[in-house]
Amino acid sequence: MRSKESAIILISCPDKKGIVFKISHFIYANNGNILRSDQHADEESGTFFMRIEWDLDGFAIEKNKIIKAFEPIAAEYCMNWQLHFSAKQQRTALFVSKMDHCLYDILLKAKEGEIATDVVCIISNHESLGTIAQYFGIPFFVFPKTKQNKLQQEQKELALLKDLDIDCIVLARYMQILSANFVLHYPYQIINIHHSFLPAFKGAKPYHQAYQHGVKIIGATSHYVTELLDQGPIIEQDVIRVSHKDSIDDIIRKGKDIEKLVLSRALKKHLEHKVLVYANKTIVFE
Amino acid sequence: MRSKESAIILISCPDKKGIVFKISHFIYANNGNILRSDQHADEESGTFFMRIEWDLDGFAIEKNKIIKAFEPIAAEYCMNWQLHFSAKQQRTALFVSKMDHCLYDILLKAKEGEIATDVVCIISNHESLGTIAQYFGIPFFVFPKTKQNKLQQEQKELALLKDLDIDCIVLARYMQILSANFVLHYPYQIINIHHSFLPAFKGAKPYHQAYQHGVKIIGATSHYVTELLDQGPIIEQDVIRVSHKDSIDDIIRKGKDIEKLVLSRALKKHLEHKVLVYANKTIVFE
Amino acid sequence: MRSKESAIILISCPDKKGIVFKISHFIYANNGNILRSDQHADEESGTFFMRIEWDLDGFAIEKNKIIKAFEPIAAEYCMNWQLHFSAKQQRTALFVSKMDHCLYDILLKAKEGEIATDVVCIISNHESLGTIAQYFGIPFFVFPKTKQNKLQQEQKELALLKDLDIDCIVLARYMQILSANFVLHYPYQIINIHHSFLPAFKGAKPYHQAYQHGVKIIGATSHYVTELLDQGPIIEQDVIRVSHKDSIDDIIRKGKDIEKLVLSRALKKHLEHKVLVYANKTIVFE
Amino acid sequence: MRSKESAIILISCPDKKGIVFKISHFIYANNGNILRSDQHADEESGTFFMRIEWDLDGFAIEKNKIIKAFEPIAAEYCMNWQLHFSAKQQRTALFVSKMDHCLYDILLKAKEGEIATDVVCIISNHESLGTIAQYFGIPFFVFPKTKQNKLQQEQKELALLKDLDIDCIVLARYMQILSANFVLHYPYQIINIHHSFLPAFKGAKPYHQAYQHGVKIIGATSHYVTELLDQGPIIEQDVIRVSHKDSIDDIIRKGKDIEKLVLSRALKKHLEHKVLVYANKTIVFE
Repeated sequence: MRSKESAIILISCPDKKGIVFKISHFIYANNGNILRSDQHADEESGTFFMRIEWDLDGFAIEKNKIIKAFEPIAAEYCMNWQLHFSAKQQRTALFVSKMDHCLYDILLKAKEGEIATDVVCIISNHESLGTIAQYFGIPFFVFPKTKQNKLQQEQKELALLKDLDIDCIVLARYMQILSANFVLHYPYQIINIHHSFLPAFKGAKPYHQAYQHGVKIIGATSHYVTELLDQGPIIEQDVIRVSHKDSIDDIIRKGKDIEKLVLSRALKKHLEHKVLVYANKTIVFE
Repeated sequence: MRSKESAIILISCPDKKGIVFKISHFIYANNGNILRSDQHADEESGTFFMRIEWDLDGFAIEKNKIIKAFEPIAAEYCMNWQLHFSAKQQRTALFVSKMDHCLYDILLKAKEGEIATDVVCIISNHESLGTIAQYFGIPFFVFPKTKQNKLQQEQKELALLKDLDIDCIVLARYMQILSANFVLHYPYQIINIHHSFLPAFKGAKPYHQAYQHGVKIIGATSHYVTELLDQGPIIEQDVIRVSHKDSIDDIIRKGKDIEKLVLSRALKKHLEHKVLVYANKTIVFE
Repeated sequence: MRSKESAIILISCPDKKGIVFKISHFIYANNGNILRSDQHADEESGTFFMRIEWDLDGFAIEKNKIIKAFEPIAAEYCMNWQLHFSAKQQRTALFVSKMDHCLYDILLKAKEGEIATDVVCIISNHESLGTIAQYFGIPFFVFPKTKQNKLQQEQKELALLKDLDIDCIVLARYMQILSANFVLHYPYQIINIHHSFLPAFKGAKPYHQAYQHGVKIIGATSHYVTELLDQGPIIEQDVIRVSHKDSIDDIIRKGKDIEKLVLSRALKKHLEHKVLVYANKTIVFE
Repeated sequence: MRSKESAIILISCPDKKGIVFKISHFIYANNGNILRSDQHADEESGTFFMRIEWDLDGFAIEKNKIIKAFEPIAAEYCMNWQLHFSAKQQRTALFVSKMDHCLYDILLKAKEGEIATDVVCIISNHESLGTIAQYFGIPFFVFPKTKQNKLQQEQKELALLKDLDIDCIVLARYMQILSANFVLHYPYQIINIHHSFLPAFKGAKPYHQAYQHGVKIIGATSHYVTELLDQGPIIEQDVIRVSHKDSIDDIIRKGKDIEKLVLSRALKKHLEHKVLVYANKTIVFE
């Protein structure tokens, strides 16, 4: 594990000659050392994507002046761009309902440093997982929801999230649909795990749907939440074999292990600023 | 590879005490030795499924009298049942269009004896794969189809298939939809390969659909053909990872390898009488 | 989940005509209903293996008289056999050192009922995981080991395990090698997880070995512990892709997820009496 | 599929500030457009690896002058480097013995353009696959080998390969060990497929070894041939599940499908100049 601090720039822009040169010149001229660089060009649309990370040790520009210094290059190439610093732990809120497998998985991986984030709070529509929050020493908030009070409860949640300065929301098997308004506050910052191989089996009870269809493989999908249910950009998917011998209970049990793998991988990529969204799809840098 | 001849009985019936006993008694009392036996009980519907295979060497009942001898047991338990003999090579017709990867794969595996079948003919709506048929020494028939002549051409195909005493039809990337009438002549005897992870991406251009959706895994599905397009009972599925770096051409290329694996596995299971259909799903014995 | 109680017989014996008949007759004649039956014949050695499970509801023989009643059949066919009852939860001891990922995984799956066992105690050579034991309410015993005291400490462990009536021992990343004497007390009852795709990378630091070799896939192996280090019969294996981009830390992190999957699957199969050992290999019924 | 011609530079050198800048400046200053760029830094050894590909359309330097023009940059950074042109089809020789599955797979993929190469000849120690060579219209040469004549035959093979201006040799299940002398003529240009998950089961009959060990997963490994048998840098590996039900014949059959996948993927990467060797391991760019 590297302890040095680094800066990360994420870029998407029309593909043009000289982009890599200009960016690498910016870093080199200011005495930076590139640690990683990944790029992708979408030939269809002529769009260029890049993630470049450089060592801040000895870098000539102060952290809070990098944005201004880079702005002319960004303007010249019409870039959509973000600047991140590796030392800044993102602040995450976990949303859960009654199932605890994804919750435990993320909390344990965060504790081990395998997923680098501060889990600032756990929010639920049920009391039941409060003891887990307590064990891990994380504040737990309950906002029970009904059709009637949903939007009001969301207002309270949004206020809390703002208060806590949350960067990233993880729906770790949260069994409530967030309103379009809620989602708009955190564009491509809310990550869901859906327990099917999307786009197959959207919506409720996907394992039951899979069982009814007699599929031979089941899956899980982690995606950004958008206003369209289970249709946001897919970050990660994985699958596991099932057979006629597997009951619904077996399918659910096998699926839970896959959900954990998929959600934690997607979250890790997101927190490392390795995911770019474009045309409702993701570029996920290695 | 065993050279002995064996008999195989496939059964589905209401689950009841004594089925295994009665069947094993039938075999034992007639001096048969069970080679393999697989069973499955669907608890939901209370249905029992079995595949039992025994050595015919020394078996007391002549092959052509087994049906009559077993009939009383079948009647007692209201069995749906089939009797097969391992020595009987099934006669297969391959339907193809212009893509040759699945065709080569099946022909080569049949030649090696990895898939035990007589490939009796290759039927196409195009001339283009005729040279492959010639190389393998297999009769090649062309029935070009238009909206207008489709049903007439199918009549000719059906006549030919009957003439050739075909047991099994494989749609090895055959790009024509068979009419419901055609399908009815070969219930659960027509095997298709669809180049998606069904039920996702039914119908035309599934790889393009997968690309548009930005899925991280693509798949292929082999299923029995029914009158509902791409909705017949699934026999086998498999998948492969893709990423944002994969163009449509990459996805098609990667997918072709998976199609071959899935189709050849499904066909092998079918020809070994290891597939039972129930409630539009399959029981696939190992 | 079925609540009925069932009996399970596991058999290995020379393959001969009539075995299935005799066993199914035994069950049928005593008014039992077969719930599952799996068999396997090893053609090379002519050995027959079977696992048969039947409903005890209405079964004519009392549980404690089944052994005696079945003995004549077992004797006739020279069977190695075991009788188990589904209602008997096996009593498990978990051995751990400092890593907690497999420990959490098993405890959480046991709590959910996904792995059916009573985790009776956690034994460690270190204090560090005691708080986890406490959280789950499971007695925690520490036996620190040095070269000098190892055999004495093992004597204390063996005494404790006997006291607690332990059926199954799980080495959940326990970083001490058990003596041959210890192992002999629990033949095919001790399950280990080794963090490589055995037989590659036996012994210490398998992930470092994998990294040095530049393999493109890493794995984990769960096996019964025998007196030969990392050479006992393999129960389950699984793998995950790695690349040149993965550091040792990445490999360890990815591997941990696979270890959990493999160990929990192996343990589940063992506890459901679905594993038979033969010629240092396993038959694992589905 | 892009039809434009591109240039590719592969680099390894000590990691230092400014490498990316200098290279991208070289391309930009000469009016080149970067199509793909992948890099990797090995932190342990402080080594930098890069593959950069740019469009030659409009590039200011003539193809045959690029080496000289780039030399000063290469010298400054002590680069090991290679220049390739996408338009140059590499000339491949396939070595085979009696098994045809990998041979067919490569020939069919080459014919489809999925693997971009000219298969210039097929060399064998047996006559048996000559008809396949004939069908594909590729010259076939037979060099039978005995312990006595091996080195002489290799001299003839080397002469032939030189005559035919071969860039790449594929051992497509060639069952003869090449001498160290032979290998030295084609450093990291000879690709082998070994039918095990290396480093497990080196040498002869790996599937039989796997069967004896009772592994639950088998694999195949494609690697560069070095003078140490089955120990050259691994390019690609893949695996498939097996169980106690699989006989040796089943394992061989399942393995053959994996061999084809692994070898064709490795060959494709090699031919696209995406593989760099370092410390007996490979960097394989996506």
